[in-house]
Parts: sequence; structure tokens; C-alpha cells
Amino acid sequence: MKIGILGTGMVGQTIAEKLVQLGHEVMMGTRDKQATLAKTGKDNFGRSAFSEWIKKNSKIQLGSYSEAADFGEFLVNATSGMGSVAALKVAGENYLANKVLLDISNPLDFSKGMPPSLTICNTDSLGEQIQRTFPKTKVVKSLNTINAYLMTNPKLLPEPTNIFLNGNDANAKTEVKKLLTSFGWNEKDIIDMGDISTARGTEQILPIWIRLMGTLQTPIFNFKIVVGKK
Amino acid sequence: MKIGILGTGMVGQTIAEKLVQLGHEVMMGTRDKQATLAKTGKDNFGRSAFSEWIKKNSKIQLGSYSEAADFGEFLVNATSGMGSVAALKVAGENYLANKVLLDISNPLDFSKGMPPSLTICNTDSLGEQIQRTFPKTKVVKSLNTINAYLMTNPKLLPEPTNIFLNGNDANAKTEVKKLLTSFGWNEKDIIDMGDISTARGTEQILPIWIRLMGTLQTPIFNFKIVVGKK
Repeated sequence: MKIGILGTGMVGQTIAEKLVQLGHEVMMGTRDKQATLAKTGKDNFGRSAFSEWIKKNSKIQLGSYSEAADFGEFLVNATSGMGSVAALKVAGENYLANKVLLDISNPLDFSKGMPPSLTICNTDSLGEQIQRTFPKTKVVKSLNTINAYLMTNPKLLPEPTNIFLNGNDANAKTEVKKLLTSFGWNEKDIIDMGDISTARGTEQILPIWIRLMGTLQTPIFNFKIVVGKK
Repeated sequence: MKIGILGTGMVGQTIAEKLVQLGHEVMMGTRDKQATLAKTGKDNFGRSAFSEWIKKNSKIQLGSYSEAADFGEFLVNATSGMGSVAALKVAGENYLANKVLLDISNPLDFSKGMPPSLTICNTDSLGEQIQRTFPKTKVVKSLNTINAYLMTNPKLLPEPTNIFLNGNDANAKTEVKKLLTSFGWNEKDIIDMGDISTARGTEQILPIWIRLMGTLQTPIFNFKIVVGKK
């Protein structure tokens, strides 16, 4: 499959590497290609600059947001949540139309320091905002409740855990589920929560997720839902 | 221990029964004792009226909010979240002062139908609001992330799951932890998240919890946090 990934950060890179391993063709999209490639040194998390990373991942193409959105038959939103709607607008509504968009973003506002707050919550969600802004796009929210390394490697955890799907289009959710199982997720552990408004719940996990990362001293954890016998 | 429980709903009743079983003296507090005892028939959830329940639980005393707060050396807030601050004010700041208050409430607004929204979230929480309103009270939020039956019977689930503590006072959290272990929780499964502001995270679990109850068709479930090896 030809897949366009919007966003060149850790989430975008991790997903891109896995997709290429699985035999997909990948183009990553960025706001300013020159600026993205010009960065050097390590980032705040100690990771190499994008220009170093892309050298090691030469099968992955880099384009503008529009080029990546045009390229992909299937799209991934891995931009940071505060800028996601703007980035998708730059990509262009026509390139997004009639495609599945796997939305991994979270509406986190780090501008006032740690812990971040949410820019949207409670009676709305970023997933819904994206779906409303691009009504012809089939938005499916998933993977936003875990660290990037776990997204493509759920077996990093000692036992199976759960991830969620939120979206209006059943076929789009089936496509996303297929991709997730190819990443190593068990189909039975992927919980379809319902329409895109259920993204309110999965996005509002972030506040406890961030605090747990501090308490547990690692981002490598996830929630397993344990159900009683009926 | 003499324990005062504010609130006579399902959470208050379940906690009261368990506390009496464990040998504590319990008084439940309500806004209007006559009105609480006058209700007959079944409630919306098919449970018997309070007057029927209290007959079967004759060791449990019923008083006003103030009487229950005065009675208890240790207090439990099991009122519905939207009315918690008002109920605690009626109970009286002086009766709450210098006591541990286990706050189980959630700021859920059902007035616009299902699913409920939160009346407070993101940059504040009901736990914080209660602590700010009653600065001399040692507020510890816990148990608000699970169904009442699980609170006092964690073994209803096929494997251990997690609950959380949020509060500013370390000794108060230790007291609450002791109570929770007497309910059947393993000490290692009770996660101290930090100060009362971490209640933002545990209260914001409710939106996904409510949706999961619908998806799973049962309220008898909980989150287990699975952590990767370091």
C-alpha cells in the first residue's frame, strides 16, 4: 500500500519504519522540507536529527504535507495535536477526501509546562474536530493512548494489552484494524469503541497516562482491561 | 473505627456494608433524613429503596450530613459529584477539619443525557475543588475509577487490577491504603499518583469508562497497568 504520514516526529518515524518493514511504500509529509532536513544534533529526547534518521531509512520519501497526502492511498496523522487541523488544511482537503486517516494525535498543550493540559476535551475531541473539518475523510482514531515504540511493537509488554478504535466508518475501522494486526496487535485486543465522539474518552486518558509515566518512570506501559465473568 | 459516609446511594451503601462487616461503626449522612427514608419501590437501577436496605443493615446508623460528619473519625464522600461541595458545606467545615476524607465522587453531569460530560476537568478536578474549599481536611481521592461492587470486592475480577490514590497528605494516603487493603486490594496494586492535582487524571478516566461499560455490556471491569521491563 502507498501510505502518507503527516508529521516527522518520533511517532511518524516509528510508524514509517514499521510500514517499510512490512513492504509498504511510505512518504512522510512536513510543513517545510528544507527546515526539517536542516536540523542537526539531538532533540530534547536525545534522538538524532531527522536528517540522520532519514539517511538510515532511505526507502522512506520526504515531501510536503500536500505531496504526502496526495501520495498516500491511506493516511496517518502523526502531527502534534495542537497543529493537526492546520497541518491537514495545508495538506489540502481534496487530497484527504475519500481516504482513511489514522489519527494518532493528542490535543496536548505543553505551553504552560508539565503536565500539559488538553486544548480540547469533555464535550469535544480532536478526532471529532478533524472529522468535522474534513467530512469526506474517514477519520479513525487509534494508537494515541500508547508510546510510539509500543504502537509497532506491542510484544514489548509482558502480556497483551488493549488499544481502541474511534470512528464513524465501519470499513475504515476494519482497514485500520488490519494494519494494527500487521503491527503485532491481537485482533481481540483492539476495542472498537464506536463513533468518533468516543475519541473524547481515549484522548482524556492522556492526563493519567502522563502522570503514570512519571510514577512508573517509563513510557513503556499500557492499560489492559480486565472484565469480570458475566 | 467510627466512620461517617456522606451519601446514601449505591456507593455509600456498598462501602457501608463492607465497613460494618469489617467491624467499624458507621453512620451515613443524608441531606433530608425523612425524604431518604420515605422513598419506596425500586430505583432506576432496580435496587430496593434505602428504607428497605437499611432494615437489612440495622447496624448502620442514618443521620444528617452534619451528624455523620461529626460522628466519623474518618469520612467518606459518596455523594454525587455535582452536589459534593454543597453537601460537604452543609455537613460543616468544622466537622470535616483535621480528618481524612476519602473522596469517591466523580463530577458527572447527566443533565443532558448519556453519555454524561464532566462538570470540571482538564485544568482542575473535583478532588482539588474539595481540597481548596476545605483546606483543613485531608482529601484523598480513590476508588472513583471503578464500579461500587468492585470497590469492596476486587476479587470479582479474574486477575489483580489497579486503583489510584490522589492526595496532598502522605499519612492520610497511608490510612486510606490500609482501608483499601482491608477491602481486599493488594497493596502493590494501589498506585499513589501524587498530590491532589493528579485527580484530574483519575476523574478524566470516566469518559472512557462509561463508553467501555456500554461496549463491554458490564460495569464489572477495571484497568490493569502492564509495564515493560526496564
